[in-house]
Amino acid sequence: MSLPTPAGFTASGIAAGIKASGDLDLSLIVNHGPRFNAAGVFTTNRISAAPVRWSQAALEDGEARAVVLNSGGANACTGIPGDQDAVAMADSAAISLGIATDEVLVCSTGLIGERLPMNNVIPGIQTAVDALTADGLEDAAKAIMTTDTVHKTASAQGSGYVVSGITKGAGMMAPGMATMLAVVTTDAVLDSALAHQILTEAVRTTFNRADSDGCMSTNDTVILMASGASGIEPDQTEIQDLITDVCASLARQIISDAEGSTRDIAVTVHGAATEADGEEVARAVSRSNLFKTAMFGKDPNWGRIISAVGTTDAQFEPTTLDVAVNGVMVCRNAGIGEDRDLVNFADREVHVDIYLKAGEHEVTIWTNDLSYDYVRENAEYSS
Amino acid sequence: MSLPTPAGFTASGIAAGIKASGDLDLSLIVNHGPRFNAAGVFTTNRISAAPVRWSQAALEDGEARAVVLNSGGANACTGIPGDQDAVAMADSAAISLGIATDEVLVCSTGLIGERLPMNNVIPGIQTAVDALTADGLEDAAKAIMTTDTVHKTASAQGSGYVVSGITKGAGMMAPGMATMLAVVTTDAVLDSALAHQILTEAVRTTFNRADSDGCMSTNDTVILMASGASGIEPDQTEIQDLITDVCASLARQIISDAEGSTRDIAVTVHGAATEADGEEVARAVSRSNLFKTAMFGKDPNWGRIISAVGTTDAQFEPTTLDVAVNGVMVCRNAGIGEDRDLVNFADREVHVDIYLKAGEHEVTIWTNDLSYDYVRENAEYSS
Repeated sequence: MSLPTPAGFTASGIAAGIKASGDLDLSLIVNHGPRFNAAGVFTTNRISAAPVRWSQAALEDGEARAVVLNSGGANACTGIPGDQDAVAMADSAAISLGIATDEVLVCSTGLIGERLPMNNVIPGIQTAVDALTADGLEDAAKAIMTTDTVHKTASAQGSGYVVSGITKGAGMMAPGMATMLAVVTTDAVLDSALAHQILTEAVRTTFNRADSDGCMSTNDTVILMASGASGIEPDQTEIQDLITDVCASLARQIISDAEGSTRDIAVTVHGAATEADGEEVARAVSRSNLFKTAMFGKDPNWGRIISAVGTTDAQFEPTTLDVAVNGVMVCRNAGIGEDRDLVNFADREVHVDIYLKAGEHEVTIWTNDLSYDYVRENAEYSS
Repeated sequence: MSLPTPAGFTASGIAAGIKASGDLDLSLIVNHGPRFNAAGVFTTNRISAAPVRWSQAALEDGEARAVVLNSGGANACTGIPGDQDAVAMADSAAISLGIATDEVLVCSTGLIGERLPMNNVIPGIQTAVDALTADGLEDAAKAIMTTDTVHKTASAQGSGYVVSGITKGAGMMAPGMATMLAVVTTDAVLDSALAHQILTEAVRTTFNRADSDGCMSTNDTVILMASGASGIEPDQTEIQDLITDVCASLARQIISDAEGSTRDIAVTVHGAATEADGEEVARAVSRSNLFKTAMFGKDPNWGRIISAVGTTDAQFEPTTLDVAVNGVMVCRNAGIGEDRDLVNFADREVHVDIYLKAGEHEVTIWTNDLSYDYVRENAEYSS
């Protein structure tokens, strides 16, 4: 079943010749209204790419009519010429679509530190405009792939409206390609302030809790666009839940497709005093290379898990920590628990549960293992 | 040339049968005075091993007469029985040496989450006492090795006194063996408060700036013992420099012997507004898996370097960063600099220089690359 495109949107994905392979590499998503509310969440990396800076500025008024996205080049660390290229992409799309330049957002993904081949990008944008269709969102998802092995989409049906999203990435990619891009569209009526609030909250608990290799990209961008074409003013809780579900599905697909990985690992912290404590602990474990290599080796090495927990400032009593791996409580009270040989690693999915016994909060971070292929992907390809 | 043992000390390293291999696994270092000043710096991991907790308490009075160290088991995450084992080790050495139990420090390294074979450890301590000699420090260095390929010692001659140290570890070790242990001895006269001040400062700029894989052990310990047997009250600056030099040499040897590594990488931050800023930036780069795999792949990937810099809160202007790899300024003003193909990776040692242009401080962190063998060492060996 192809991805439902919310009313009011058209999209396309075409091959502009940015990638030497000739694969699809340029996407366009257009909101035809009647409303043009939009919100974005961007990388907090201070070395942000030119398209990130452009899109942040263009979104200040809470509206956007189009997003042009390319793979094959990140347009990051490209100086003032890179900023000019990003503006030229917006400008070119705006002219073809008959809208204003600052109504067009730009997203790029690919190598850092190289200019985009603008001689291919600009004609490609015209091709993408010509290719716009009411069911083009799936093609748009395909054209933003870098080393993704599958294109990634998710959709949820609301009461009289729909939410559909696409994404690509992230971690464990070939050099400089760790970027995560996502666009979520809906035909619900959603004012810009609420769109921003909903998106920020959804990203916080979904994309921001998928931490494949701890490395933050210069280009990460999540955009939400609402056309209002359904005429439905949604229940706020319902649309918050639907957008969160779509983001969660997209984030989970990224983890499952992380290159070089053999495991999708849910690190869940139970009984945290605060949500921040839970996140700090889950992230410390997720980023421990000793933990990640143990997971690759199918080794329920709880010593490495609690060593990572011990580096945090979270509230807990060091002598009362419990840790379960795939349901086997291998560590009790920070000491030896059940027989580690009971842990079954047959599935790709691994569940690590850490019990802080300090409160009521629970946080899950999804991560991957650290494998030979991660090293290969990131060491052997020149960039 | 064997390691000079400072006057007032004897030491030994013997095989107690803790390691199944039959290799040396138990060391004893004894200070015969006339002074017994001592200081320690310990892991800040809240999941600390039993011997760490014991030694911290035993050092509260600023004095120690002996250190017993074992490889083959970390005595970490072993609960109250583990605490009892650590005390029993101190007690056993104290009885044999005719001193008080709380004058004996204990250090352990090896697997986490397993009890020590006390039936071998206790007789081994008596054997170690019997084996004490005035030139036994080198044997002591050998008996604390885990997956180290060479034993590690350093010495410096002061004006009428000597400083000698031993160490083992660290990062990129087999499972749970990432511990760094070090003992530094001197026959200078050094009061306990000054010893603590000097050691803390020396560790801060040496061992704490060797960051092989970002994973903090439960057992890390550095001990300084001063016998005063030379009768020399040293110039404070001189002994600070000598102890720092010995610690720096030992820390550098750890990086060079890090298992699975193919590169020793000095990440130097220049022009930081504060020392803390410099350290934050150098550590962020040192811990980026994308950077570390690039180094393994001999790829001067400056995009990954400045992406890591961009995740910090340090003071700098994102558009003015420069980065050199082995002297080639591959990134200028956060954009493309000299041809990256000019970078020569012939040597094991790699120098990455990052110019923040925000002040006068300079900080170097030594780290290693991320290689297939790191993954193999840490994934394939069960623990």
